[in-house]
Amino acid sequence: MEIKSYIENNKNRFLNELFDLIKIPSISAIDKYKDSVREAAIFLKNQFENLNLDNCEICETDGYPIVYAEKIKDKKLPTVLVYGHYDVQPVDPIELWDTDPFKPIIKKTDIHPEGAVFARGSCDDKGQMFMHLKAIEVLKNTGGIPCNIKFMIEGEEEIGSDNLEIFVKENKEKLKCDIILVSDTGMIDKNTPSITTGLRGLAYLEVELTGPNRDLHSGLYGGSVANPINSLAKMISSLHDKNNKVTIPGFYDKVINYSQEERKQGDLIPFSINEFKNSIDIDEVQGEKSYSTQERRSIRPCLDVNGIWGGYTDQGSKTVIPSKAYAKISMRLVSNQNSKEISKLFIDHMKKITPPGMKIKINEHHGGEPYITSTNSQAFLAASKAYESVFEKKPFAVKDGGSIPIIAQFEKILDVKTILMGFGLDSDAIHSPNEHFGISNFYNGIETISNFYNFYSSKV
Amino acid sequence: MEIKSYIENNKNRFLNELFDLIKIPSISAIDKYKDSVREAAIFLKNQFENLNLDNCEICETDGYPIVYAEKIKDKKLPTVLVYGHYDVQPVDPIELWDTDPFKPIIKKTDIHPEGAVFARGSCDDKGQMFMHLKAIEVLKNTGGIPCNIKFMIEGEEEIGSDNLEIFVKENKEKLKCDIILVSDTGMIDKNTPSITTGLRGLAYLEVELTGPNRDLHSGLYGGSVANPINSLAKMISSLHDKNNKVTIPGFYDKVINYSQEERKQGDLIPFSINEFKNSIDIDEVQGEKSYSTQERRSIRPCLDVNGIWGGYTDQGSKTVIPSKAYAKISMRLVSNQNSKEISKLFIDHMKKITPPGMKIKINEHHGGEPYITSTNSQAFLAASKAYESVFEKKPFAVKDGGSIPIIAQFEKILDVKTILMGFGLDSDAIHSPNEHFGISNFYNGIETISNFYNFYSSKV
Repeated sequence: MEIKSYIENNKNRFLNELFDLIKIPSISAIDKYKDSVREAAIFLKNQFENLNLDNCEICETDGYPIVYAEKIKDKKLPTVLVYGHYDVQPVDPIELWDTDPFKPIIKKTDIHPEGAVFARGSCDDKGQMFMHLKAIEVLKNTGGIPCNIKFMIEGEEEIGSDNLEIFVKENKEKLKCDIILVSDTGMIDKNTPSITTGLRGLAYLEVELTGPNRDLHSGLYGGSVANPINSLAKMISSLHDKNNKVTIPGFYDKVINYSQEERKQGDLIPFSINEFKNSIDIDEVQGEKSYSTQERRSIRPCLDVNGIWGGYTDQGSKTVIPSKAYAKISMRLVSNQNSKEISKLFIDHMKKITPPGMKIKINEHHGGEPYITSTNSQAFLAASKAYESVFEKKPFAVKDGGSIPIIAQFEKILDVKTILMGFGLDSDAIHSPNEHFGISNFYNGIETISNFYNFYSSKV
Repeated sequence: MEIKSYIENNKNRFLNELFDLIKIPSISAIDKYKDSVREAAIFLKNQFENLNLDNCEICETDGYPIVYAEKIKDKKLPTVLVYGHYDVQPVDPIELWDTDPFKPIIKKTDIHPEGAVFARGSCDDKGQMFMHLKAIEVLKNTGGIPCNIKFMIEGEEEIGSDNLEIFVKENKEKLKCDIILVSDTGMIDKNTPSITTGLRGLAYLEVELTGPNRDLHSGLYGGSVANPINSLAKMISSLHDKNNKVTIPGFYDKVINYSQEERKQGDLIPFSINEFKNSIDIDEVQGEKSYSTQERRSIRPCLDVNGIWGGYTDQGSKTVIPSKAYAKISMRLVSNQNSKEISKLFIDHMKKITPPGMKIKINEHHGGEPYITSTNSQAFLAASKAYESVFEKKPFAVKDGGSIPIIAQFEKILDVKTILMGFGLDSDAIHSPNEHFGISNFYNGIETISNFYNFYSSKV
C-alpha cells in the first residue's frame, strides 16, 4: 500500500491515539503533576510495544524517566535515533485558555480551515513527537522499515534535560547512530516547508532583590528607603541601551557576525512583517538596531524578563514597600556564546549594579548552548527531498530563535549531528494559552517523516 | 477611684476583650472575609451597649457598615467625636508571619520587655481604637464622663473610606462636634510621646501594560518584539531622576516648601538614623536629594511601586514573553498637592511614556488629601497635658508620613479639626507580617485618653 493511502485510511485512529497522550497533564515544572508525567512515559512504552519495537524500556533517572525502544534490522544499515519529549509547559495563565488545556478539541481557524487540535502539548512536543511513532507504523505497513531505528523520548525537556544529558553520557554505545532526528521546531507556513539549521542557546536566571528586612508601610517609610521593586525596575531597565543592545559587558564578544552576503541569504526566506505584527496584534516591532526582525529572532542574542513579582498583587490596594522583589530573566544565545559564560557575566554585572542598601541573590535555572548545522549533509538532502515530495516545494534552511539545549549536547557527547524536521507554525501558540497543532500538519508530518527514512536509506 | 488604679485593676480583662476583637479576620480588601468584617461591626455595637451608650446602631452603607454610639450629657458641654476603624489590612505574605495573624499572642521583644500583642490589627487600628472604648469605661468608673461623646467606627478605612465620606455628608447634624479624636498614628518611641500635626495624602493607581495579544515563546519571538515587563520596568525606572526626584511634570508644583527656620524645628525631634537603619536592616537610606530622612517621610511627597507582576512567577522556569505586565503604584502627597490632580498628572505622563507598540490601561484606587493642623488649639493643648501626665514629658508635634484620607474630608465636610493622639510605634510593623502593639502602649493610651477628656472639658 502507498504511504499516503495508509495515512488516509487510518487518520482518525492516529488522532484519537494522540488525544489519549495529550490528555495526560505531564507538566514537568510543577511537582504536583509528577504522577501524570510518569503516566505519559508508560503510555509511550505501551505504544512502542504495540509497534513491536525491541528493548522497550522505561529508563529511570534522578528525575523523570527516558522511554527507549529500538528496531535493529541490520548493523550494516544506517541508524536513525529519534529524540522527542513527553513533558509539557505549565498552563498558566489558565484564565486565558478558551478550553481545558488537557481536553483536546478540534477547532477550525483561519490558518487551519480543516481544523487544529487545541491543547497543551498538541504541538510542543506530543503532537510532533507522536508523528514519529505513527511514521514507523506507516513504514511497517507499506514498504517496511528501511533502516535501524532507536527512540529516546524524555520527560524533562521543559525543565532543562539535565538527566537526559547524564543518560546520554552513560549510554553512548546504546545510542550509537548516524543521525539524530527531531521534530520540535516549526516551518515557515502551512505550505512552505523549512528545515531548521540553527538554534539559539539559553541562559536563565532568577533574581531576588532584598531591601528592608520586612515589608514596610509605604506611608511611614515612603521616600526615605529604597524600594526593591523600584530598584529592580531600574536594574532591568539598564540592561538595554537606547539601541536595544544588551549592556552586560562582554555579552556580544563571541557572537558570530555574519557577512552581508550571508545576511542576504536570510532575506530570501518568505516573511511578512505585517502578518507578523497582525498575528500578535502589535503596531510596531522593537529590537536591536541595524538588524531585521527575522535576524533579531534567529542570528542575534537577546534578553527578556520572563516573570516579575513583588509586593501586593491581589485585589484592591495595599500600601506596602515590600522587603523583596523577584524576576526571572533569560537570554537567548547564538554561536559562539556559551551559556555558563553568559550566566557569569550576567551575575557579575547584576551584582555590580545592585544599588547601595540592597542585597541580591541570583539562582541559575537550566541553560543550553546554541547549535548550527550545514545544508550539505546526507540527512539534510534526504529531509529536503522528503519535504518536497509532500509539499511540492523545496524547504528553506532557516535558523530558529528557540532553544533545544540537548541538541548541542548530543553533538558534544555522541559526536552526531541532528536533523531538525519541524512541522509546527509560529501561530501554534506553543508555551502559550490555546496552544494548537493543525491536523494537516500532523498528517503531512507523518508522511514526510516516512518518506525521509526511505530517502535517507536510499531505497527510493 | 483613680484612673491609674482602675486600669491596673482591670488590665487583664481589657486585654482579653481586645483579643476577642482581633480574632475576627475583618479584612475589608478581600471579598471572602465579608462575613467577618460585619462580625467585627456587631462586636463593637455590643461593646457600646455594654458601656450604656445611647443610640448604638449599625449604620448600613453601600459597603461595610459604620458603628455609631453616643452619650450626650449636656448640650452646653463640648462634644468629642471619636473616629476609628474595625477593618484590617490583608495578611500576605502569610509565610512571613511567625504566628497566625488572627490568633493574638503576647510575646516579649527588645522594645517591649513587658510584652506586645502580635496579630493583624493589634495596633492598626483595633488596638488603638479599642483604647477609646476602655477610656469611656474608665471615666464612668472614676470621675464620670466629663463631656458629650460620639463614636463613629468604620469598616472601610483600609480600602479608602468611600462610604464613610457619604455617611458623613448625609449626617452632618448627627456628627456635629467640637473636635474629632483619632488614635491611628504613632509616637516617637515608647517613652517619647508625640502628637501628629500633619498627614500625607495618597494617590494610588494600577497600571496594565499590554504588548502582544498573547503570551509568546521567548525563543521564537525574543529580541524582535517589545516585552511588556521590560517596558514597564523602563517606565517605572524613568519616574525618578538621579536625585530621586519624581519626574512627572507638575508633580512638585503645589508642594509647600518650608523655610530653613521651620525645617530646623523638625530637627529637634529625636531621631537616630542608625536605629532607623538597624530596625529594618539596611546599610544605606535613599531618598530625595537635599532632604533629611525625617523630612523625606513627612514633609516631602514620594512615589513607590507597591506591587508588580507579570509573566511566569511559579516554581522553575518558563520561557515566555508575557502579553501583559502590571504594577500598583502609589504616591504620598503633602500640602497642598491634590490627589485627583496628581492622579491625572500620573496618568497623562504614563500614557506619554508608553513605548510604541504597547497599550496602557490605568485604574485609580482610593486616594486621599494631605492634612495639617496647628499646635495652638484647645484640643492640642489638652492632648499635650494628657500625654505629659502619663509619660512625664511634653509630646513633640510631628508630621506623619502616613495617610488617613478621611481626616481632610472631615474638615472639608464638617468644618471640624481632628486631634491625632497616636500610641503606636514605627517598629509595630503595621501593614506587615508580625504586626504587634506593646501592652504598655495600650494601657498608657487608655490612661492618656481618659485624662484628655478631663483636660479638654476643663474639669481637672
